Parts: sequence; structure tokens; C-alpha cells
Amino acid sequence: MSLKELSESMLPAVEAELQRVVARLDAPYTQVYHEMLTYHMGWTGEGAGPEAQGKRIRPLLVLLACAACGADWQSALPAAAAVELIHNFSLVHDDIQDNSDLRRGRPTVWKQWGMPQAINAGDGLFVLAHLAVTDLEGKYPAETILKVAKTLDETCLNLTRGQFLDISFENQSDLTVEEDYWPMVAGKTAALLAACCQIGAILGGADEAAQDSYRAFGQYLGLAFQVQDDYLGIWGDSVLTGKSAESDLVTGKKSFPVLIGLSMDKPFAKRWAEGPVRPEEVPALAGELAAEGIKLLTQQTADGMTDLALTTLRTADPQGEAGEALFELAQKLLGRPA
Amino acid sequence: MSLKELSESMLPAVEAELQRVVARLDAPYTQVYHEMLTYHMGWTGEGAGPEAQGKRIRPLLVLLACAACGADWQSALPAAAAVELIHNFSLVHDDIQDNSDLRRGRPTVWKQWGMPQAINAGDGLFVLAHLAVTDLEGKYPAETILKVAKTLDETCLNLTRGQFLDISFENQSDLTVEEDYWPMVAGKTAALLAACCQIGAILGGADEAAQDSYRAFGQYLGLAFQVQDDYLGIWGDSVLTGKSAESDLVTGKKSFPVLIGLSMDKPFAKRWAEGPVRPEEVPALAGELAAEGIKLLTQQTADGMTDLALTTLRTADPQGEAGEALFELAQKLLGRPA
Repeated sequence: MSLKELSESMLPAVEAELQRVVARLDAPYTQVYHEMLTYHMGWTGEGAGPEAQGKRIRPLLVLLACAACGADWQSALPAAAAVELIHNFSLVHDDIQDNSDLRRGRPTVWKQWGMPQAINAGDGLFVLAHLAVTDLEGKYPAETILKVAKTLDETCLNLTRGQFLDISFENQSDLTVEEDYWPMVAGKTAALLAACCQIGAILGGADEAAQDSYRAFGQYLGLAFQVQDDYLGIWGDSVLTGKSAESDLVTGKKSFPVLIGLSMDKPFAKRWAEGPVRPEEVPALAGELAAEGIKLLTQQTADGMTDLALTTLRTADPQGEAGEALFELAQKLLGRPA
Repeated sequence: MSLKELSESMLPAVEAELQRVVARLDAPYTQVYHEMLTYHMGWTGEGAGPEAQGKRIRPLLVLLACAACGADWQSALPAAAAVELIHNFSLVHDDIQDNSDLRRGRPTVWKQWGMPQAINAGDGLFVLAHLAVTDLEGKYPAETILKVAKTLDETCLNLTRGQFLDISFENQSDLTVEEDYWPMVAGKTAALLAACCQIGAILGGADEAAQDSYRAFGQYLGLAFQVQDDYLGIWGDSVLTGKSAESDLVTGKKSFPVLIGLSMDKPFAKRWAEGPVRPEEVPALAGELAAEGIKLLTQQTADGMTDLALTTLRTADPQGEAGEALFELAQKLLGRPA
């Protein structure tokens, strides 16, 4: 059974579990509140459907890791729902913080219902994630559930650390990759992916060492994914040709290659210091960064992180078809041929 | 030992526990994030001190209920910290949602650090509350801790329900006490007080029936407190004399007496419909509401809820000096001679 086949049985179960958890708000007086969440999750409203739901990578990691430890993934569904709800809580608040109008091609919650309600809707998703964890009751020993809760909350604290740094970066000009970029990405992107893999291993009954390996796999997966995303944000086909207005060079994102470029006293850093980059400058400026050796360095860094992710996954030694699917998922996410 | 003496030993312990929990963010890269929270908690920054910290009623309820069940309150300190952090998470987000510049006489977090950071700081307090619950580990059986976590999360969901209703009310004109006011207050004010008393009883080792009584006591305490607060918002000495600009009649708060007044086809409702009330109108309009019988009705409702609170507390049968202190605290909060 391939990743595709496992996904086809896991993802509908995840969606049903998510809907069950969110339905706690489907009650008198709170119908509109419930509607905000079902809209954001991609189930209702204009544009609802798979495109609006995202890929549900995080719950998939929980269930695959659990199954790759030889356990029944169905019992872990509340935990899979929990991590996806945490992810979505952070998206709802992130969209307010970034003043983003669109999410997955649709108006964001704050655009639809206003900022005060959107803060509250994000809080609601956060709470529902925690209630989903308590829904593991009866399926696992209380000690195991507490460990999942603690893992998730330490992760959430890291998420807020990453978010704090990301917001702070807007007003800072002397950022470095070592002291700023890695701590931010570790919190904002990698922490939750690490938690997904670890929680899957905990519920799968893995020993502490294997839990740690699964966790490290998720962490490196997140770091690799982010650096690769940063690479594509400048040298991806779409931003180099048609959509240069979406290039990280135009939006001013302080991504990995940009920070490396700024640390060098070369033409890229000089141009950046002169103010916002216009879309028509993108091809030449992306070429300049490449000429300064930064395209290669970014690719090598992404490759190095990817290798670390795959190495730690081998150490975790995932079993069976779910184990193979984990390798397949990692390679797919990181743009390698499986 | 009176409430005063018990408070004098409990409150410094609560403060130390809160600082211990929040210190999780006192680390490289997140010093400013940590500072936002210590500022909001009233420990640092201009105007820091007891006035800026609030009364810490909620942790006190946890510890008194726990002690009144005959148990050691010291072990329950992480839970006491958790409820106070939840309360403060809701305040930080509330101040953004209400566009409030001041909290306890000081600039709010969003005024100091901007809206994006304030959303994140509130999220951080929420997470820290949950981590505080997991700090009960080793002091209580895992099942007990899970019950506390679940009680707290169901409460948080109710808080967001109340907040959703409160925000919705701004744009609604046909609100009723039965269908709108009580559900909102039950979530926004009463739910957390109910949880404090219940969690104290759970950690105090009370049986299910006593836990329910403690919970009901907290719920009625919250409802009584809110109605009394609404009474003072219109007929309190300070808003009737010097500070009429702070009267709920001027701020337009849809409080209990206002909603009752709006349901009657009398002069108050007519004046309200004509637009904002000016401070100089306050004494006459408050007099009109009283003439319509609403001052008496509001006082009777607060009295009725207070009686219910005290009756359910007697049913819970709290023991010893902590038990006496609980009665004293309730009477003090509700403005009755002890």
C-alpha cells in the first residue's frame, strides 16, 4: 500500500474527526461562531472543498508514525485532529497579524467577520485542539495522554516563540541566519511537525529513543521544508516568470537566501538597502543572488537538512507500509524523486 | 484564621508560582516576549505593583476550595496559576477586541507592543496556563490531572462562546436577558469562576456531588457578581456623582438593567433609541430607569443569585477556616456584610 492508498483511507477519517470536534460549537446561540470555524477549515462557504482545506500533512504524519510503530492508527485520530487544529489556530491569528486578505484563495476569517471575532475564532480552534487531546481518554492510559498534552503544549509555546520572532523581524535590519532565522523557523515551522511525529510515536507505543528519532525527523523535515520554500520563493519557476509580484524579493520576506545576501557586502545587499524591489527587477536580482553563490548555498542547505531528515527517519526505523509511506511523504514534500 | 490571614499566606505563593510558570519564556531570543507577559501580569514596567496585578480572586478560589475539602493547598498551586493565566489570556485578547487603551490604569499590551504581538502574547498566556496544569504531574494521579485539564478546556470553550456573543451584541439591537444576556455572562464571567471552585474540589479529593456543588457555587457567584457590577455601573455612587462619563449609560454597555429597560416601551427605551447618552444626562436617566422599577429588579436579581451562591456553598459544606474564608470571600465580592 502506497502513500496514496494510505492517505485515501486516513484523510477522510481525519476530516470526519475534525468535524466531530468542531461540532462542539454547533449549538444554540453559537451557530455563527461554528460557521466561522467550518468556513476556515474549508467545509462551508464560498470556495469550500479540498483546495480550501489544505493538505492535512500534520495529521497524516501523526497517523503514519503511529502505524509505522505497528499500532492501530484509528485510535490516534483525536490526536491527529488536535495537531491540525493547532495548525489552523495559528493560521487564523497569523492572517490577522500579517494583515493577509486571502488564505488558500479565499477571504480570511478576519476579512469575513472582523478582527475581534477572528481573534476569538482562533482561540476557539486552540481550545478545541486541547479538547481533542482529552478525547483520547479511554483509548490510552492517562499517563500517555498527559504526555501527548505536554508535548503539544511545549510545541505551542515554541510556536508562539517563533511567531514573536517573526513579528519582531519586521522592524529589525541586522538579522542573522544563526541567531534569528533558525530560532524563528524552529518555532514557527519545525516545532509542530516534530510534535506530530513524536505524538504518533508515543501513541504507537514506541520507546523513548524511537520517540526522539521520530521527533528529530519531524524537526529536520520542517527545517528542510522551510529552506526549500525560501528557495522556491526566489528561484521557483512561477515567481521567476509569470508571478514575480509574489516573489519573496518583492514582498520583502526575510528568508534564508535574503539574510545570507544581506550578510555579504555585495550588490544584492546594496540594492536591498535602497528600498522595495519592483516586480520587473526580480529576474535580474535573483540572478545577482545566484552569482553571489547564494542559490547554490540555499540548495545545499535544503539538501543537507533533507539528508538529516531521512537519516533520522531511518534511525526511527518505521515499519511496514506506513513506514514506506513516511519516506515517500518526506521525499514528496522536499521535492525529491521517491 | 480569617480570609485576610489565609490570603496573606496564599497570595504570595500564587505570585511566586505564576512567575515560575511565566519564566519559561525568560530565555535567549525571547526576552521581549517574556517582558510583555511580566508587564501584563503587573510585575514589571511603569506602574508595576499590587494595583497592576488585580485581586487574584480566581487562584484564591482554587486554593480555598481545595483547603476547604481538607487537602493541602500547596500542591494545587500550579492549578491556581493556570486559572489566573487563563483569565489574563482573555484580558489581553479582550483589550484588543474592545480597542481598550488602559487595563488597571496602565497602557494595554497592544498599546505598548502593537496588535500582532499582543495577539501572540495572549496566545502565550493560554499555552502557559496549560503547561501549568501539566506541572501537577507527580503530585496527583494522571487521571486527576486529566480531569482538571478537561474541566479547564471546557471552560475555555465557554469563555470563547461568551466572547463571541459579547462581540456579536455590538451590532444587535433586539437583545433579550433570557436569550442573550444570561448565555453571554454564563460564558464570559461565570464559567471560569465555576471552574476554579470545581478544580479546587477535584484536587481537594471531594466526591462528584461535592465537586458539582462547588462548581454551582462558582457559577452563581459569577452571575451574581456580574449583575451587581451592572447595578453599580448605573447606580454606583462614583458613576452617579463624579465619574458619570464612566457610567454604562454613556459607554452604551448592554448590561442587565439596560436590556430590561429596552424591553419595556417606556421613556428609557425611547431615549436610548435616539442615540448616545451624554454624561450630563446620567443622573436623570438613571432615575428614570429606577422609576420604571428596574433598579429594584436588578438589585433583587443580584440578591437572588447571591442567595443561590451561598446556598450551594452550604451544600458543598466547606470545612475549617478555608470554608469560613470562602463564605467571607463570596460575601465580600457580592457586597454583603459578612
